[in-house]
Amino acid sequence: MKPNDTSAAPVLRPRCVLPRGFRAAGASAGLKASGAPDMAMIFSDRPATVAATFTANQVKAATVRLDAERVAGLGLAHGIVVNSGQANACTGKAGLRDAAAMAAWAAARTGVDPSLFLVCSTGRIGIRLDMAKIRPGIDALAAALSPAGGEDAARGILTTDTRPKRFTAVFAADGRPCRLTALAKGSGMIRPNMATMLAFFLTDAAVDRRAASSAFRAAVAASFNRISVDGDQSTNDSAFLLANGAAGNRPLRPSHPDWPAFEAALRAIALRLAKEMVRDGEGASKFVTVAVRGAASAADAESAARAIANSALVKTSWVGTYPNWGRVMDAVGYSSARVKEDKVEIFYDGLRAVRGGVRAEATGAALSKVLAQKEFTLTVDLHLGRGSATVYTCDITEEYVRINKD
Amino acid sequence: MKPNDTSAAPVLRPRCVLPRGFRAAGASAGLKASGAPDMAMIFSDRPATVAATFTANQVKAATVRLDAERVAGLGLAHGIVVNSGQANACTGKAGLRDAAAMAAWAAARTGVDPSLFLVCSTGRIGIRLDMAKIRPGIDALAAALSPAGGEDAARGILTTDTRPKRFTAVFAADGRPCRLTALAKGSGMIRPNMATMLAFFLTDAAVDRRAASSAFRAAVAASFNRISVDGDQSTNDSAFLLANGAAGNRPLRPSHPDWPAFEAALRAIALRLAKEMVRDGEGASKFVTVAVRGAASAADAESAARAIANSALVKTSWVGTYPNWGRVMDAVGYSSARVKEDKVEIFYDGLRAVRGGVRAEATGAALSKVLAQKEFTLTVDLHLGRGSATVYTCDITEEYVRINKD
Repeated sequence: MKPNDTSAAPVLRPRCVLPRGFRAAGASAGLKASGAPDMAMIFSDRPATVAATFTANQVKAATVRLDAERVAGLGLAHGIVVNSGQANACTGKAGLRDAAAMAAWAAARTGVDPSLFLVCSTGRIGIRLDMAKIRPGIDALAAALSPAGGEDAARGILTTDTRPKRFTAVFAADGRPCRLTALAKGSGMIRPNMATMLAFFLTDAAVDRRAASSAFRAAVAASFNRISVDGDQSTNDSAFLLANGAAGNRPLRPSHPDWPAFEAALRAIALRLAKEMVRDGEGASKFVTVAVRGAASAADAESAARAIANSALVKTSWVGTYPNWGRVMDAVGYSSARVKEDKVEIFYDGLRAVRGGVRAEATGAALSKVLAQKEFTLTVDLHLGRGSATVYTCDITEEYVRINKD
Repeated sequence: MKPNDTSAAPVLRPRCVLPRGFRAAGASAGLKASGAPDMAMIFSDRPATVAATFTANQVKAATVRLDAERVAGLGLAHGIVVNSGQANACTGKAGLRDAAAMAAWAAARTGVDPSLFLVCSTGRIGIRLDMAKIRPGIDALAAALSPAGGEDAARGILTTDTRPKRFTAVFAADGRPCRLTALAKGSGMIRPNMATMLAFFLTDAAVDRRAASSAFRAAVAASFNRISVDGDQSTNDSAFLLANGAAGNRPLRPSHPDWPAFEAALRAIALRLAKEMVRDGEGASKFVTVAVRGAASAADAESAARAIANSALVKTSWVGTYPNWGRVMDAVGYSSARVKEDKVEIFYDGLRAVRGGVRAEATGAALSKVLAQKEFTLTVDLHLGRGSATVYTCDITEEYVRINKD
């Protein structure tokens, strides 16, 4: 292994292999009528440095309020307890008390300070947590904590995801082998009162707190903040990075020679998990990469890409195979990006559908073949500057409406 | 008739009765494969003062570019020629030439100056107008122009609307009876390459050009700009007011004693037509009035109302009868409006579902009865100020996806 070699993309294993010093567990506490796993716990044997990002929604779950305070304060965490089925959002002061009680119960069962436990909820908005089920659930989780419990935890955090989402990468820091493992939930859409994307990144490397925080924000911005399924933003979205230093390396920071390897693994896993959320999007039949280039600025590129990825008309058109580029032109035109209609160029994979704002040489039959694929890239070149942005999204199908109407 | 009495709402007849000095016609020119009417002409025997509003989309149909120039210039129009089936958008310089040629052909056939003809297209984006069909269509329209042709014109402008949309109101100006008649198309959604809302307001009253322009802008802002079906904005949206002065009154302006009656009729018809577009929305099964009050500003109220009305999750939830107020809280929270979660109050018709940001007294059964109706009002009170705004919208059904995917 060449620790400084970041030219090769990190290898990601689709497994939840816990880094040293971490234990985890999953449990069925009866919060879901189906009896499916609905709780998980992640525990570090030593306090871990923690970085986190939370939803920008002004309506925030009680758990988000509690965690944000704890992360901004001490910035250390021993564990995270998670329930699915009930979001503990729009539950007022009682909800805040429930969140604190849930963390305290988990801390007591694992013998650590209550302020060192974080707590996440995901599920229906507006109902109180069923603490009578959650307390025994925590008891079971604490008893089951194991270095081999990663896969169980990855299942315990799911709601309507059709499959667990977790990846493990290895890298070296000061010659010591380290792991970065992440598990996440979210099928790219906010569900009917099942609002949430949650992600937990765990590493046994020591990472400087400030460096961890800025690297994590950057990784989230380039991944989870680059996916769009229905344009709605949840009350519970949370992502955490816990670095417990069990590997014994000198803390990683940008000046450390092994920083690039860590950062590359962080970015690669975040992007892979984000794409998995879109691929597992409710009712989604196609994965579409929307790339905008040639914009007057990066912000313009992002605005144009998001307008395309959030347009109900564009997304419904992708269900079929007719290259409805008029809708793409329309969405770009009403975005906040500067657009000169007679400069716009549009490609479906390598085929040029629009040049100078009007139909180009690609035939309808050729474009239909691209659109018939499960995955394709839509590229829009505004020819106004050097700004570029990429957003990952999916189609909106009848199945999406069917699932969300009830 | 009491011309100054604006306390009573104007009476609107669902008919296209043309005001004096106007003639109109509809025709089937073969632009639609179905053979349905696809062209219309409106003609004033004398040049009419014209006010207009156009799409804010940066990608604009050729017709929009041509008309905007003519309205801003002389501000007079003799006639408008309209085709449906082909949008003449994203057609480049050739499209501009086609639009000018279409206006010139119509002007030649009616014997007026070409610069006094306006032209509208609606239909598929990105294909050239079939001028070989449009020219004979114009010939037929010019030959058929009649004071009784309003209903034919109202049908000729439709695309996938299920019914014509037109209303006539009467008022008095200087003791002379006047009519305001409007015809429109648009079923509240931008269609698959069938993008457009078009509206034509005609009156035989004389109206001061500047007063007409500001009153028309205000009426459009409170009606067509207050509806939301899928959040997309077309390349072709256009609305016109033609006032030909055939009634012989002194020009109406705000200082004229009969101005309020004219303005009330204008606003009432615009709002009624806008609501008709939502009711006729593609696949729509419910008409929902979203009213936000208590916002820190009017702009905040509008932002919150639009976030609700544009949320795919909120709109799909309305297909069913479960009061999914968590999604409403979520949408309000991510809008640009200032929100204090613990102050938010939500009502479905008269029933309070949320108070202080948490579940209120209304039962799920009672709320389901409200949601089972074809029309209901969702009211959100932010309790932060006096800003308010209302938006009219509909649900997103599986039928919507079915129609738009092909």
